[in-house]
Amino acid sequence: MTDKLDNFLGGRWVAGSGAGTALFDPVLGDELVRVDATGLDLRAGFAFAREHGGAALRAMTYRQRAAMLAAVVKVLQAQRDDYYAIATANSGTVKNDSAVDIDGGIYTLSTYAKLGDSLGDRKVLLDGEAARLAKDPVFQSQHVLVPSRGLALFINAFNFPSWGLWEKAAPALLSGVPVVIKPATATAWLTQRMVKDVVDAGMLPAGALSVVCGSSAGLMDALQPFDVVSFTGSAETAAVIRSHPAVTQRSVRVNIEADSVNSALLLPGEVPGSEAFELLAKEVAREMTQKSGQKCTAIRRIFVPEALYAQAAEAISARLAKTTVGNPRNESVRMGALVSRAQLAAVREGLAHLQAQAEVLHDGAKHALVDAETAVACCVGPTLLGTRSAAGSDASDRVHDTEVFGPVATLVPYRDRAHALQLIERGQGSLVASLYGSDAQALADAAIELAPFHGRVHVISPEAAAHHTGHGNVMPQSLHGGPGRAGGGEELGGLRALNFYHRRAAIQAGTTTLAALA
Amino acid sequence: MTDKLDNFLGGRWVAGSGAGTALFDPVLGDELVRVDATGLDLRAGFAFAREHGGAALRAMTYRQRAAMLAAVVKVLQAQRDDYYAIATANSGTVKNDSAVDIDGGIYTLSTYAKLGDSLGDRKVLLDGEAARLAKDPVFQSQHVLVPSRGLALFINAFNFPSWGLWEKAAPALLSGVPVVIKPATATAWLTQRMVKDVVDAGMLPAGALSVVCGSSAGLMDALQPFDVVSFTGSAETAAVIRSHPAVTQRSVRVNIEADSVNSALLLPGEVPGSEAFELLAKEVAREMTQKSGQKCTAIRRIFVPEALYAQAAEAISARLAKTTVGNPRNESVRMGALVSRAQLAAVREGLAHLQAQAEVLHDGAKHALVDAETAVACCVGPTLLGTRSAAGSDASDRVHDTEVFGPVATLVPYRDRAHALQLIERGQGSLVASLYGSDAQALADAAIELAPFHGRVHVISPEAAAHHTGHGNVMPQSLHGGPGRAGGGEELGGLRALNFYHRRAAIQAGTTTLAALA
Repeated sequence: MTDKLDNFLGGRWVAGSGAGTALFDPVLGDELVRVDATGLDLRAGFAFAREHGGAALRAMTYRQRAAMLAAVVKVLQAQRDDYYAIATANSGTVKNDSAVDIDGGIYTLSTYAKLGDSLGDRKVLLDGEAARLAKDPVFQSQHVLVPSRGLALFINAFNFPSWGLWEKAAPALLSGVPVVIKPATATAWLTQRMVKDVVDAGMLPAGALSVVCGSSAGLMDALQPFDVVSFTGSAETAAVIRSHPAVTQRSVRVNIEADSVNSALLLPGEVPGSEAFELLAKEVAREMTQKSGQKCTAIRRIFVPEALYAQAAEAISARLAKTTVGNPRNESVRMGALVSRAQLAAVREGLAHLQAQAEVLHDGAKHALVDAETAVACCVGPTLLGTRSAAGSDASDRVHDTEVFGPVATLVPYRDRAHALQLIERGQGSLVASLYGSDAQALADAAIELAPFHGRVHVISPEAAAHHTGHGNVMPQSLHGGPGRAGGGEELGGLRALNFYHRRAAIQAGTTTLAALA
Repeated sequence: MTDKLDNFLGGRWVAGSGAGTALFDPVLGDELVRVDATGLDLRAGFAFAREHGGAALRAMTYRQRAAMLAAVVKVLQAQRDDYYAIATANSGTVKNDSAVDIDGGIYTLSTYAKLGDSLGDRKVLLDGEAARLAKDPVFQSQHVLVPSRGLALFINAFNFPSWGLWEKAAPALLSGVPVVIKPATATAWLTQRMVKDVVDAGMLPAGALSVVCGSSAGLMDALQPFDVVSFTGSAETAAVIRSHPAVTQRSVRVNIEADSVNSALLLPGEVPGSEAFELLAKEVAREMTQKSGQKCTAIRRIFVPEALYAQAAEAISARLAKTTVGNPRNESVRMGALVSRAQLAAVREGLAHLQAQAEVLHDGAKHALVDAETAVACCVGPTLLGTRSAAGSDASDRVHDTEVFGPVATLVPYRDRAHALQLIERGQGSLVASLYGSDAQALADAAIELAPFHGRVHVISPEAAAHHTGHGNVMPQSLHGGPGRAGGGEELGGLRALNFYHRRAAIQAGTTTLAALA
């Protein structure tokens, strides 16, 4: 029997009372560890987090909490090798892909440590200037932001066990709000280990950070009016969370990041071989294969002028053909595994669903696996589909509706700029779109037109070619989230992330009372 | 048969195909008009609003839309007498109470006209400064706010048919988002008339403002991913709206303002007859009787030191005793009617519910009605209840849980400051709390401690006595909304109100592209 990982709740390590659910190596098929939350007293554990964790965090200033995050960064940096080993075994990712999760999480945490330090030794944030409520300025309104008096529950996705934890926990802890993290079961190991290292190092007050691994049953029931919940995952589960009485009746604040059919758009006016054209091909191939396409921000639809369809297909396919797929322990491998057999089956099913309305331009099935057995490893080569013609792009509703969570994207030819924008809108709200072109004004105009439908628009033009941060790479300085299908949430965006964990209030008072606020 | 009011939808006036629901004079009992939305093509009407209203509004700059609001203000000001006549007949309110709704709405609209003008001739708002994404500043992230590409549906409450429309429509229209208003049936007449006057005056583009009167059936079904819905009313209906697939599956953004058991707190250290003590008695009596207590912001719980319970009861009761109740057409009357027999029954029921855990300190039933028949008029005198002792305040859970939507409040004695704050928190989130005292630091500290549980804290101290804007009066400069039981929404707050009607996006781009945004 493999080890069963403990949960940390109510200020202590506690084992579930059940047999547990096994986590596997998606390349070798070995069972690694088990997780279990059966029998945990969630209500008592949540109350401990609110009362002890919350009070201790709120007793600190923003600067003190920022210093606490910086100390957590040091703890994590000291154990990086362990985390990479867990990622290789449990996520089946090559080193560069593990880095996106592990170092991406640590970088995000360190960014919030710096941002938090700039807030200084205060416990309340002023929001804007005081506003007069009458002609006489003796009575005014000053808005403040104060930490929410509840806990933050994170129900997270399997693809970012490290980054997904820290990109949410950093702004929550900096805000003075205690965190309970429920990682996705398939990859819960890394999350649990990081929490364990931080808890063991004694870097956080008791109750500030808890981890529950296994089933999410009962978590929503234990929420109270001033708690918040942030979910990353499928649209189906998102709807269940939004329909829960904690949300509908107790006004628990919700942040959702769900499905997204992200776009890459080559603007009209480019010719094959132009710098923008090459930047598109390079970025698409990278996005399709990084983490085997298991990123909510990955490019799923590629929009090119109809006349460039064949050349774009060729340029992208040529890059995909070079992608070696298989066991991440082999240094020649560029792309590792999907996370599980279930995900492998879902990707194959999604691919078949899309193929009914698209042609195959590059077939991932033709990639031989390196150092991995087809019957065991959750590996799949990258596949590029295409809708053939502008008319086909209109007719293929599945391409605009379906997120296949793997190394799969579809090339979508368009007639003209207006047609491209209209097709992109059929995604009904996405996390990110990227633009490729060489005319700054055309790029800026397109960015503004796409902004209502996306949380982020990433512009890749020759001037930024050497410095841009990647279509799918989520930077803590920028908003992460999108409207509509993408869930309507807002994460990160620098200090904007703190809003979710604060309550805004207007204090209307006379001059001397307002002066005494600060 | 009385007249049946038309709806304005799809750019034209359209009658419902049913018999309609009657609106009544709550004092005289007369039927006034009828409303009906049976058979309306809501999907087509909503599509018209999005496509025509939205596009026309977005084609204007913020300054142009602000000028449009200023023109609407002029239209409304020219018809004030009509609105007062409708309010007297349909809401049963005295002139001063009608003013809170009518002139309050017009004032809010004119405030947004001024705020909007300050945004200038632009169509996109920059949100903060650009942030570097690498050491080299050639690639940065600039957040923008762009108008949501949907419509704003308002499902409103009966108590503010004018203010409730304009406090929401002003920021929506200023943001470039078309509005569909569904007023509460009981008082829909004033809302419908105001929309009619504005539409007839040709002040808005086609599709920018629509009104649907009668049943709300089908309204939520017609919403699409980029629409927003703002609801004011009961917690039960709020839960239904939050559970609707438009919200749970299509991520329609929701703003809720629901029940609220607002507090007034006399800080420790005051003696009977002190200025703060008198300010409390005055404000409580005013809040209880204004609009017959039919304000979501009205004071429901009054916290005083246990030793001052008897004197506070006496001081408030003495003011309540002077309140003449009855027909608002009689100039000696200070407080008019509740809105309907249904509300009268609900207030009586709520009063009985509270009385099981409280004593009667001033009995509204003893107020003789002026110029109104008890069997017909929906009038009720103001009633002050009390929980007798600090122990009684702990034991009376109904006082902290029950919003009686009429001229009813409960005096709640407390042991010490910590006890008072703990009792206030038992309201589980309210719109507003007011503080009374004479020590600026004590007032400021209490305001910060109450801020996480309230959207607004209103401080009434001697320095502000002559200038404060009233506990229950919602100023457009300040946030309106509250966490938990109060629904978790945010309205008004000056330009903060525009956030709900905009989408935020991060644009990551090179220097010349970012420069081309503005």
